[in-house]
Amino acid sequence: MPIPNDHGYVLERLARLICKFNLGRITAEAVNLSRTAIVDTIGVTVAGVIEPCATNLMRTPGVATAPGVCSILGTAKKTSALDATFINGTASHALDYDDFSQPMGGHQSAPLVAPLMAIAEERALSGRDVINSYIVGIETEIRLARCVNFFHYDIGWHPTATLGVFGATAAVGHMIGLNEHKLAIAMAIAASFASGIKANFGTMVKPLHVGQCGRNGLLAALMADAGYDANPAALEHKQGFLNTFNGPGNFDIGAIFENWADPMEIVSPTMGLKQFPCCGSTHPAIAMALKLRQEENIQPEDIADVQIMPHRRRLPHTDNPDPLTSLAAKFSVQYAVARALVQGAVRLGDFEGDAHFDPAVRSVMQKSRAFPHPDMPDDSPEQFGAEVIVTLKNGRVHARRVNSLIGRGGDNPLSSEELWEKFSDCAKRVLPTERYTEAFSLLNQLERVDDVRKITALLSV
Amino acid sequence: MPIPNDHGYVLERLARLICKFNLGRITAEAVNLSRTAIVDTIGVTVAGVIEPCATNLMRTPGVATAPGVCSILGTAKKTSALDATFINGTASHALDYDDFSQPMGGHQSAPLVAPLMAIAEERALSGRDVINSYIVGIETEIRLARCVNFFHYDIGWHPTATLGVFGATAAVGHMIGLNEHKLAIAMAIAASFASGIKANFGTMVKPLHVGQCGRNGLLAALMADAGYDANPAALEHKQGFLNTFNGPGNFDIGAIFENWADPMEIVSPTMGLKQFPCCGSTHPAIAMALKLRQEENIQPEDIADVQIMPHRRRLPHTDNPDPLTSLAAKFSVQYAVARALVQGAVRLGDFEGDAHFDPAVRSVMQKSRAFPHPDMPDDSPEQFGAEVIVTLKNGRVHARRVNSLIGRGGDNPLSSEELWEKFSDCAKRVLPTERYTEAFSLLNQLERVDDVRKITALLSV
Repeated sequence: MPIPNDHGYVLERLARLICKFNLGRITAEAVNLSRTAIVDTIGVTVAGVIEPCATNLMRTPGVATAPGVCSILGTAKKTSALDATFINGTASHALDYDDFSQPMGGHQSAPLVAPLMAIAEERALSGRDVINSYIVGIETEIRLARCVNFFHYDIGWHPTATLGVFGATAAVGHMIGLNEHKLAIAMAIAASFASGIKANFGTMVKPLHVGQCGRNGLLAALMADAGYDANPAALEHKQGFLNTFNGPGNFDIGAIFENWADPMEIVSPTMGLKQFPCCGSTHPAIAMALKLRQEENIQPEDIADVQIMPHRRRLPHTDNPDPLTSLAAKFSVQYAVARALVQGAVRLGDFEGDAHFDPAVRSVMQKSRAFPHPDMPDDSPEQFGAEVIVTLKNGRVHARRVNSLIGRGGDNPLSSEELWEKFSDCAKRVLPTERYTEAFSLLNQLERVDDVRKITALLSV
Repeated sequence: MPIPNDHGYVLERLARLICKFNLGRITAEAVNLSRTAIVDTIGVTVAGVIEPCATNLMRTPGVATAPGVCSILGTAKKTSALDATFINGTASHALDYDDFSQPMGGHQSAPLVAPLMAIAEERALSGRDVINSYIVGIETEIRLARCVNFFHYDIGWHPTATLGVFGATAAVGHMIGLNEHKLAIAMAIAASFASGIKANFGTMVKPLHVGQCGRNGLLAALMADAGYDANPAALEHKQGFLNTFNGPGNFDIGAIFENWADPMEIVSPTMGLKQFPCCGSTHPAIAMALKLRQEENIQPEDIADVQIMPHRRRLPHTDNPDPLTSLAAKFSVQYAVARALVQGAVRLGDFEGDAHFDPAVRSVMQKSRAFPHPDMPDDSPEQFGAEVIVTLKNGRVHARRVNSLIGRGGDNPLSSEELWEKFSDCAKRVLPTERYTEAFSLLNQLERVDDVRKITALLSV
């Protein structure tokens, strides 16, 4: 295949592809997947805004005090697009409940949605505008990830931030109509903003990385628009992003351009939405438990025995028959499966307060055993499988098995009902029922909303 | 020598040293050098605020729109401490005329002065407070530089930014009285903010790095104060700053702590103030030309011949007998020396408009020759030497020679008169004479100013 574009510096070539991005080639499937991811990200943002990583930021002097029309979602506050992005971006990753991408080694939507929604709200743009620029942002950051990963990830960079900043710049640059030259400059500025190390995982700084990279990406686009300059060779320069972050030889520029947007990254099965607010290693077993309950109409009081058999690699950090804290419950496959069997859902509130001591759930946990699936090989490429077998008191045995379930997306997207289940669970933390219900009905048809302010107005209190 | 402090993570140890920093050990020499550097930085900030890297930033939507009492120096604008730092920090490096440090491989004062002045203005602190916290910031960033350089510099990081962010955090944290724990957390946040690559040298992004690192350092300190958390092991963690930016084995943690502040880095001869607004390689020759003119009372019309003999390494990029642009003039040792002989000073205006075609200066240039000094060895540790020999029409020959002149500072600081010459040349670009004259008289006794707002008020229009 000829590379479609081979003149100029890497960022100039990338800018050309972005500016010429053929929106007519966006399929209905791409729109569906984008909408689902955007709605999902907005949901977890609203849920996250009351977490300390967001509230501590809002009370830091000079943060989110700039005047503006952009909503800090889930609050009554309005501020500049830059500061709204800073807070909303941080909130979107507060619960680590936002979507993730295998090639990125990180979270792909969170860096994009906050700045796109802020600019769309400020400029009264449409839902379709948000979707189009979101797709461009995804394409950009995932292609850069294919160039630098997993070397980049392994040495300590947090790709959500260090690559997300380019995605945000590209997405916003596309949305505000930067020309090729200015877009290349904007991404070159972003190369000097890229930051975020994994040593800060497990602290408030992890979600902060998202707010920071989203804000910086937006800032880079706005600065280029205002006349800033930068070096368009800032990626491949001997002291540029690639050599400085990865080191000579540890990247593949060709991977950025080969078959660019054909197919678009957004339709790749490597995108994963998190359906449940607990460790991803418990998700395959939870999904099978929900399937059993729904399809076999299992009642908790009829259960005699539960066998939970995840792939061996999912178990060391989730085998916890007696979690004593909310956090431990997030890493207990026994708790998560019992909760699914009892409640038919696994929700944020199940990992708050004393929910993990709920007697009805504990009763099922006492009948449960978790052990590695005997028939899922260690070295299989499919390492996110699980089988759940429920024996009822009447002697009947029901089983469900999945061999690979890394989040939901690509060829296995969340249904509208499943998305509503998660969105409403998130939104009810801070918003009245009628508001988030109406917001969801608009979000569910985002590509037909002519002005996103109709949505953001409903997501403010 | 025993390391004074050896418990805990690197940032905890560093925070302990900063919190216990013995202000009583600050000598009069340290105060003098600090004051001179701070005044110098403020001067170049005022001069830089009308440069495109600063003006483009100010017209970027949402930048410097937050309400606040902090001055953007040289303008009428007030904003938050964060945004004032962003603009003033960028302006301070706009002309690349601010001081530099050999061990840092970058500019040491610019990342510190903007955030310290902003917080001091906001909280009505004294000049002595600024000096004390400045000394702490210098100690912190230079010690970190001794840990990571020059590997860090050589692979492409811009230490002014990637180390300056820690200096700014430490300086502000000291100024606002963070306790040891919060200060360690603040520097751990800064580790995730550190950014800036040298590929963007030669563009507006180079000075932007300073505004960004100053703002981020300040932000990290304010966030820690507001209750943020982070990983205090963020420096030495396997995916922390040292391993991620430098790679395993390419740093020396001991260099941070060994003989901490004894002597203080601020009194080291490795600090260099830039006396002239042109390439540093021309400075030794300019200094000798000024000495000749002053001490021998040389008049331009009496000159028959000028021999300019810099160390060989200073010449390849500054040997330009006929500069055709202002920028080229900054890299013409013939122009700079002739300008010094004609005018008795080398000023910002000499590199603007058509100043480089000034007939009086061109006349001297035509009598000048530049060539490598025959008696300054290539492999000498002293590579910033020059000799200038002027032959007069009456046959007399005068010569001055210096073997090492890397900026002014340490054991060769600018005199108050020389500082005024530079400061006034900078300030007159934007401020009325009476205001900057009065400001200088206060700055010249900074350690006795009880409220820095007396100074910032004079530096606003």
